[in-house]
This record gives sequence, C-alpha cells and structure tokens, in this order.
Amino acid sequence: MMRQLMKAMCLSSVAVFAAGAASANEELARLQKDAKQWVMPAGDFANTRFSTLKQITAENVGKLQVAWTFSTGVLRGHEGNPLVIGDMMYLHTAFPNIVYALDLKNENKIAWKYEPKQDPNVIPVMCCDTVNRGVAYADGKIFLHQADTTVVALDAKSGKVVWSVKNGDPGKGETGTSAPHVFKDKVIIGISGGEFGVRGSVTAYDIKDGKRVWRGYSMGPDSDVLIDPAKTTHLGKPVGPTSGTNTWQGEQWKIGGGTTWGWYSFDPEANLMYYGTGNPSTWNPKQRPGDNRWSMTIFARDVDTGMTKWVYQMTPHDEWDYDGVNEMILSDQTIGGQPRKLLTHFDRNGLGYTLDRITGELLVAEKYDPKVNWTSGVDMNKNSPTYGRPAVLKEASTDQAGEDVNVKNICPAALGTKDEQPAAYSPETQLFYVPTNHVCMDYEPFRVRYTAGQPYVGATLSMYPPQGETHMGNFIAWDGKTGKIVWSNKEQFSVWSGALATSGGVVFYGTLEGYLKAVDAKTGKELYKFKTPSGIIGNVMTYEQGGKQYVAILSGVGGWAGIGLAAGLTDPTAGLGAVGGYAALSNYTALGGSLTVFSLP
Amino acid sequence: MMRQLMKAMCLSSVAVFAAGAASANEELARLQKDAKQWVMPAGDFANTRFSTLKQITAENVGKLQVAWTFSTGVLRGHEGNPLVIGDMMYLHTAFPNIVYALDLKNENKIAWKYEPKQDPNVIPVMCCDTVNRGVAYADGKIFLHQADTTVVALDAKSGKVVWSVKNGDPGKGETGTSAPHVFKDKVIIGISGGEFGVRGSVTAYDIKDGKRVWRGYSMGPDSDVLIDPAKTTHLGKPVGPTSGTNTWQGEQWKIGGGTTWGWYSFDPEANLMYYGTGNPSTWNPKQRPGDNRWSMTIFARDVDTGMTKWVYQMTPHDEWDYDGVNEMILSDQTIGGQPRKLLTHFDRNGLGYTLDRITGELLVAEKYDPKVNWTSGVDMNKNSPTYGRPAVLKEASTDQAGEDVNVKNICPAALGTKDEQPAAYSPETQLFYVPTNHVCMDYEPFRVRYTAGQPYVGATLSMYPPQGETHMGNFIAWDGKTGKIVWSNKEQFSVWSGALATSGGVVFYGTLEGYLKAVDAKTGKELYKFKTPSGIIGNVMTYEQGGKQYVAILSGVGGWAGIGLAAGLTDPTAGLGAVGGYAALSNYTALGGSLTVFSLP
Repeated sequence: MMRQLMKAMCLSSVAVFAAGAASANEELARLQKDAKQWVMPAGDFANTRFSTLKQITAENVGKLQVAWTFSTGVLRGHEGNPLVIGDMMYLHTAFPNIVYALDLKNENKIAWKYEPKQDPNVIPVMCCDTVNRGVAYADGKIFLHQADTTVVALDAKSGKVVWSVKNGDPGKGETGTSAPHVFKDKVIIGISGGEFGVRGSVTAYDIKDGKRVWRGYSMGPDSDVLIDPAKTTHLGKPVGPTSGTNTWQGEQWKIGGGTTWGWYSFDPEANLMYYGTGNPSTWNPKQRPGDNRWSMTIFARDVDTGMTKWVYQMTPHDEWDYDGVNEMILSDQTIGGQPRKLLTHFDRNGLGYTLDRITGELLVAEKYDPKVNWTSGVDMNKNSPTYGRPAVLKEASTDQAGEDVNVKNICPAALGTKDEQPAAYSPETQLFYVPTNHVCMDYEPFRVRYTAGQPYVGATLSMYPPQGETHMGNFIAWDGKTGKIVWSNKEQFSVWSGALATSGGVVFYGTLEGYLKAVDAKTGKELYKFKTPSGIIGNVMTYEQGGKQYVAILSGVGGWAGIGLAAGLTDPTAGLGAVGGYAALSNYTALGGSLTVFSLP
Repeated sequence: MMRQLMKAMCLSSVAVFAAGAASANEELARLQKDAKQWVMPAGDFANTRFSTLKQITAENVGKLQVAWTFSTGVLRGHEGNPLVIGDMMYLHTAFPNIVYALDLKNENKIAWKYEPKQDPNVIPVMCCDTVNRGVAYADGKIFLHQADTTVVALDAKSGKVVWSVKNGDPGKGETGTSAPHVFKDKVIIGISGGEFGVRGSVTAYDIKDGKRVWRGYSMGPDSDVLIDPAKTTHLGKPVGPTSGTNTWQGEQWKIGGGTTWGWYSFDPEANLMYYGTGNPSTWNPKQRPGDNRWSMTIFARDVDTGMTKWVYQMTPHDEWDYDGVNEMILSDQTIGGQPRKLLTHFDRNGLGYTLDRITGELLVAEKYDPKVNWTSGVDMNKNSPTYGRPAVLKEASTDQAGEDVNVKNICPAALGTKDEQPAAYSPETQLFYVPTNHVCMDYEPFRVRYTAGQPYVGATLSMYPPQGETHMGNFIAWDGKTGKIVWSNKEQFSVWSGALATSGGVVFYGTLEGYLKAVDAKTGKELYKFKTPSGIIGNVMTYEQGGKQYVAILSGVGGWAGIGLAAGLTDPTAGLGAVGGYAALSNYTALGGSLTVFSLP
C-alpha cells in the first residue's frame, strides 16, 4: 500500500524508500488523531492546529474561566505551546530551556523538571529574543532543541537524558530556537542564525539513539542540498545542476543564510516533509547579487532520505529580510471542481500561497494584507519567463536604491505580514486563521564584513503602522482556494500568537497586550477575552482531561516584536527596528513566562 | 509643646492627643474607612486586614473566578500586597522594587511604572530573599522603601519622584524590605539586617519633604531609644535609666540587632504606633549574655515624637532567632465583662499575646501551636520576680547547651510559628485568622566575629516538620481573649501568605504551592481554591471597582521558606536552614511574580 502510494508520488525514487517507511512511528500517527491529546507542536502532521474537541462552542465560550495557571520561572519571550501526552503536560521555557512534566491527574504537580546547563554566551547570538518554540514527543521520549543547538532526548516518564547530540556551533552564530518535529523514526532539527551568516540546514536524527541520518542544506552543492538536478523540480521543471550555488557570487553561499526555524509539516502518504528557508545573508542585497537560491524557498523533502522533491522560491534575491520560514499547512480541498492536495503558506513577504503539495505547482499567490506594497504580485502565467516570480516595485527596492539609502514606507516590515506565529486551518470552515503583523518600515542597507559569530545584518530599520493607521495587527480568516480575506479583526499590536481552530466553531489567539481571545470561526466576532499575566507570543492549544476540554496558552512577552521589553532595549532602532514600533507595549504588560489554562465552569 | 505632650502621655493620654489629631492626615483616616479602596498595607491603621465588603460570601465564593492577571516581570519572592486608591492600583515587586500604577478603569493598563536604579550588590546582604512588602500612600504620594534603604515619594498620578532620602547603609548590612507606614503626617520606616549586626530603628520622615522627624533605636542610650526612664514602662513599671544598654555586655548593643521590618499599627486616639523588634545579634546566645533589651520587644511609641510609652520584651536573651517583628493587631473586645483596647500579636516564639494597648498590660500569652516546646509558658503572676517572662526548658536551651552543640528538635524553628505573614482579625467573629509555620529545628550555635557588612549569624540550622508529622503549616482561627485555637486547617507547607477576613463570612489566604484558598470564617471549612501561577507569600486584599468586589493576591514563591527555589540553593542547611525543610516545594511550583485578581462571574 505504502509502496504504491509512494510510487505514484514521484515516478522513480520510490522503491528505495519503502524499506524506511515500514519503520514509521505508528504510535505518533495514531496519537495525533486523539483530540484529547496534543502530541506534536502543531497538534498534527499537517500543521493545522485544529482540534475536533467541541465542548467549548461559540455559544458557551463566553463563560470560559481560568482553570489553573503555572509560572515557568523564566522571564523573556515564551513562544510555542505545551504538549499533552496521556495525563502529562510537557511545558518548555525560553532560555535556559527548562522542560516541566506536569501531572494533569495530580493537580498539575511537577512530575519532573529538566534544566539544561547552557553557556549564557549563547544569548547575545540570538537575534530576536531568547525564545524556544517547544518540545516534540515520540517513542516514550521528549525531544528538546536547546538554544546552544544541543538536541536532547529525555525519558518522558522520568526526565532522564536518553541521548544528546550537538546540531550546530553557537560560536558561529548557530542557535536553536525551533521546535523539533518527529516524522516517522526521525527527529528533524532546524537552525537559527540568519543574522550571523549561518548557512541553514535541516537535519534528521534517529529517535532511538540520536544518530544523524541526513542533513539537507538550504544552499550549496547539490550533494549538500540533497538535490537531484534531474528530478528535483522548481515550478514543474528540473532545477538542473548546481542550483544551490550558481545564483551566488563566489563562495557567498557558504554564509548564505536560509535558516530553518519554522514549524514543519509532513504528509505521511507522500512521505514528504515541508518547510521554508529564511533570508539570504546579509540583509544588504547589493552585497549578494543573484537569486540566492535556495533561500526564501519552500522545500518538499523525502523524510527518509532528505532528498528534495521540489522547491519553490518565493522571494528571489530578498531585499527586505522576508524570511520564508513560516509554516506550510497541509489540507485537502477542492479547487475548480478538482480535489487537490494542498499546501498553504503565509509568507513574511505578505503573500499567501497555495500550492499542490505533491507536485509543487503554484495555484494561488495573493496579498493577505492589502497594504503590501513591495510587489505588484506574482506572475501566474506558466509560459512567462518570470513565471512564479513576484514583480518588485521600484519604490520599495532597497537593491535599486542602493547602499546607505533609506528606503521609506515599505510594507510589510522585515518581520513580515506574518512571522513564526503559526496560523490554523479548520477543515470544517475550510478557512485559515492567520495572526498577522500590520507594520511597515524604513530600510537602509549598508555594507558589512563577515566575521564568524558576529552579527552580519547589514541594514538599519524603523518600523511603524501603515500610513494613516494606528493598529499594527490583524487577525484574519483566509480562503486559500481563492486567496481572499474572508474577515479581518483589527488588533492594536501584531498578533504574535499562534491560532487554534476547533470543531466548537471557535478560533482562539493571543495578543501582545496579553489577552486570550475567542472569536467565531465563521464571522470573526469576538466572543471572549481574558487578560493573562503577560503579553502572548505563544500558541493556543487544547486538550481534554477527565472529560473536560481545556484551552491553554503560554504568556510571556518578547520575541522580535517584544524584544524591547524582553531585553530592556530603549533605542528605537534597536531590536532590528522593533523597539520603536512596539514601544507602546510597555503600557500594557511586563515580562513573565506563565501558562494559563481555561475551561468551562 | 513636645515636652508637654510627652508629659501628659503616661498620665492621661487622650485629651492631649486631640490636638495632635488635628494635624493628622485626615484624608488617610477617611479613606481607610472606605472598603472599596485599600489605602495602606494592612487596609487599616489597626492592622486587621478586615474588609466590610460582602458581595463575595461563604455561599457564593465557590463560584469565584479569575478576573484578570498581571505579571510583575520580576522573579523571586513577592511578599506584601497592592494598594487601591480611587481607580488606581499600586503594585510593587521584589528587587529591583518596581512600582506599577494600574488603571483599574481602563482595562488595568499601566498608567506609570517606576523602576529605581539600585546597586545589585545589595542582594547578597538580604538574608531571606529579595523581598519587598509593598508601598504606602498619603497626600497624593506613593512611598516606596527600596532594598538599598532609599525611601522615595512618588507622585501618585505621574510616578515622578517628589523626594527621596536614604534611611540606612547597605554597606553595613542595612537593607529595606518592610512596607512604609504613614501615620498622621509621617512615613515610618523600619530596617532589616538582624543577620548582619544591624542595630534596629524606626524613623519618621515628614511626608511633605522627607525631612527626618525622629528616629527611635531598639537598643542603646535612652536618648537613642527615645525612652524616658521614669515614664516609659515595662509591664507597668518604669524601665529606669540605661535600660537599652545595661543588659548588654560592653558595647555589644551597637551591633545588637532588634531590626524592625514588620507591619506597624496605629491607634489615632492614643496617638501610639505599635511594632516589634527582632532578634539580638548574633544568633549565638553565648556571645551576648543578658536580656539584650530591647530586642524581641513590643514598642508603643508616640507617633509625633517617637517617645516610647511602653515596651514588653517577649523573649529576653533569645536563643533561637525568635524575632519579635510580627505585626500588632488592634481590636476592641470585652474581656471578663470589661471592654478593653487590645493589641494582639503572634510571635515567632509560638506564643500568641494579648495586651492592653494603652498601658502595655499583659493579658494573655498562650501557645498558638501545641507543638511549641522551648517554653513551658509565660509567668502570669504579677507579683512574681519573673512576671511576664517565658520559662525556658533546658532541653531547648541553646545557651545552656553551649557553642558547637547541636540542639535537636526545638519547636518552633527559627522562622517561628509565624513569620512576617500577617494575620487578619474580624470584629464580626472576634477571631484572628493566623497563617502559621508548623516546623521544628536543630540549632547549633557557633562563635562569630563581627565585620561590618558581613553575615553575623552564628548558628547552623536544619528545619523539618514536628516529629511524627508531615505537614509544615496550619491556618488557624484564634480567640485572643482566651488564647485558644478555635479551628485549625492543616497545610502541607508553611502558610507564608497574609490573611484577609471579610464581612462576607469568608477568610482568604494563600499557600506556598500557589493556591488561593477561601474558608468559612466560622468553621474553617474550605470553600474554594485556585492554583495561581507561583507559590504565594503575598497577602490577600480586596477592593471594589465598578460595583464589583475583587480579591487580589500576589504570587511569586520565595521569602525565607522559599529561598531554596528563589535563589537556586541546594545545600539543605543553606538559606538559614530553610532549603532542606522546604525542598519538596520544587514539586509544586516555580518562580515568577504575578498578581491574580478574582471576582464572581
């Protein structure tokens, strides 16, 4: 069965991988279907952050109340969300990346706590706060990806270390912020450090012993990127030889960026995993002529071998730090009367993309914030030489303006119309619920020299709301089939919290001021809000315990948007331009990591 | 004028002070009667922590839910409670002693924030965590007593500094942890540092400009202690000359301890303020023969002049660190058919005292934990030469055992049957609600040399529950007229949270695990509990806003009991013996300062 599926998938490569497929982590595949638990970062392989739990409905969510709370003991930004496996909740913190196992059956007592010893010198190498996006589970182990790039497997019952490997070198600016993702018998680890000239990669380790199985770089020789020049496709055509080096000047690809710190998804039938790569290094586009492949690119890789089935570069030759790392959400929907296996992605560049996830065919590319002004749109004409490319508007081109020229009023800002804050998808409404930034910027590139472990940014930024407006965020519902906003709720600040969609017809998200909000999935009408202890940059999740549905959110302001508060910065251009834009946040909230868990009375 | 006042004081008090009363801070006297606000640390001058609000009752408190929350942005122990003046809440934090003004009418936005710049070198000089017990209000100003002993008056509307004075010298181990108290036109400031040989004092500053009006030391020459040898009484008799030096060897009184970091009370009619003094320094009793007056003493001082009307030394020649700083609660009750003006005090030494607050007459001295084993009781025979003295049992005498002898199983432990966590008193039930420690200790004194600014402790401790028991705390109701426990609820850990009594027939307190609990004032029956983000060592308070009663509690584990968690200590004898005794706390909670505010739906 599996073999047939995979054969269909891509004509050839199949037979080889069938052997690997037999060893898949069946427990995980089974557990993700149990809505009472939340067994992986996004709740499921498809990255939908959708739950079929429906005790909490649009009708009763107004009565929601706080059931219990837990302080993590760590300040600064708390991204991500806990997992629930059986009766245990696994909760992570920002640096120093503590993991707590909380016994949900026993008044949420701390069953165990794991606190890694990490060199605090990693902190200055983290571009955008000391965040960590959570843990993964498989095979009786909890996987933690530490700031210092150590990947550690903990016994889920005792918290004892089973194995540990080092994925990168903080001395070169390589850090760990993203959640591990377990697909089949591998735990997949990304890397952060695009502002330090880190060459991005994803690496698969065996969940049993931490042995490295494969690593696929974002750029470099085909053997590094794991590309078959004849079979790996870009918009339906083979990429050809040296595609990971031939759009770079000299050996710039070695410090080429394209880091990989988003939320990955997995299609078990296709045996493909999906993720995006970040900005090319440096942010000064003049310094790195060319398309800078495969930065800013959606990758579809075979999970067993790492081989790239297809790629799609969204923002060739980035001029604005429009990192492509945001999650790929997998859904099966019908377009033009035809059932399609889709991948939907809300890019930092302000475009919402829908692709065929099996072939990589581009179906939709539309602005999900009408203020996006750097491009007139993507060329959708398959016969055009610029097919699939966004048309860059001169007024917003920091490359055309040149070094040391301050290009004003580019929308979105570098942190994108959306950053890591993950969207949710409800198969019931067939809508995507997208937390967005509504922020523009001034961008002045300047020349930098690469020194390992030193910032390699090359641009000065200021951020602010779009002209004539005062709000800096929207929470929107998006139709991925047509590329249209269905409804949009204004928020004073960026919505830097991951969304949750549920069968109860309620969608949840958090705000930077600290509110957990519940809105009607169909209309966006606000049904409930509650002020949690700190600003929210974590992701909402839900689980059931003892017959009761709970909704949980990690507070703890910080992240890129909250870096001013989190790191105590005051210069408005500090924090890569975020400090000035989000200065008013200090009128609403203060630091502090804590979990707030809600239920009906 | 001053001389006349003092002259009249002992003879006929009342009529004379009527004049003084005219200059009293009438605003404060009026505001404290408005139950909607909470205008001073204990809610009223009498230190009752009682509110006449009664929207929340024993019948409906089970439906209580969390209304809003606020993270302070500071880890480590959060003692004390916020104030509510008008529509503004004033909330303090542990070191660095931030003050937030939260606008209750405007979604609790931060109206202003004041963050003092303090030398972090003060932290190692703080014996028992970096706590601060809150702010005071008067005359449009918020008074903050910083860790570094700076007293600052902030404009209540803007947070701007109006004046600032330095009360002590952290270089000598003098630190600030206690709340300021405003009585009439003075703000009264205590001092911490009994473990550093600090000579305790209370100092009155003019609320207008911070000018020092008087300072009364705990020991030293009469002119330092503000004692009139002929008029200041101890158990009804004049203390005589040099009472503050003649029970000390040589000049030991200069480093004599007797610090003053509790919650003060004030009787406006009598014009007297009441507080207790702490342990004599060092903890090694062999090193300081004599009664060590006036350490371990209840002081009644004239607020205008600081002159001492009466004293009562509870634990002469302390051998166990039974600090006498705990609060004095003022009540008017009838004893033996006679209406009395009372002062009730739950001492660290395990005895609950009731005195006539005008004369200092000792009425009741009984154990408020039956496990107290260092004394057989207080001699209540007025004609006895040991009248008013506790009889020390040989088995518990660390002085008789001598230096370097580990005396086992002394109850209570050094942190007392109660420490700073304040009790509440309901005039409706005429009961005191007392958060207690149920902890014993081994105590081994050793010889130390005094060096300014260095620890001057002189004993090694271990703490643990009483033999044959596993719980370390009780929350009790106490009849101060008879000295009897009316009901007692076991708690796994010390109850290190201040209590709140209300006209709704509900009493509130917090636990070190982090629960806010509501119990029936008459029976102690638990009616409600909620797990706040962190362990509770703060005090419960209540206010009304927009027609709704709110109950608020500051979480943030730490303090002496939680010092292991707060400071990351692991050696069981560290934290003056607390680390071992409270090690299990780490199974329940983690650090993090936050406010949780409750209301009915």
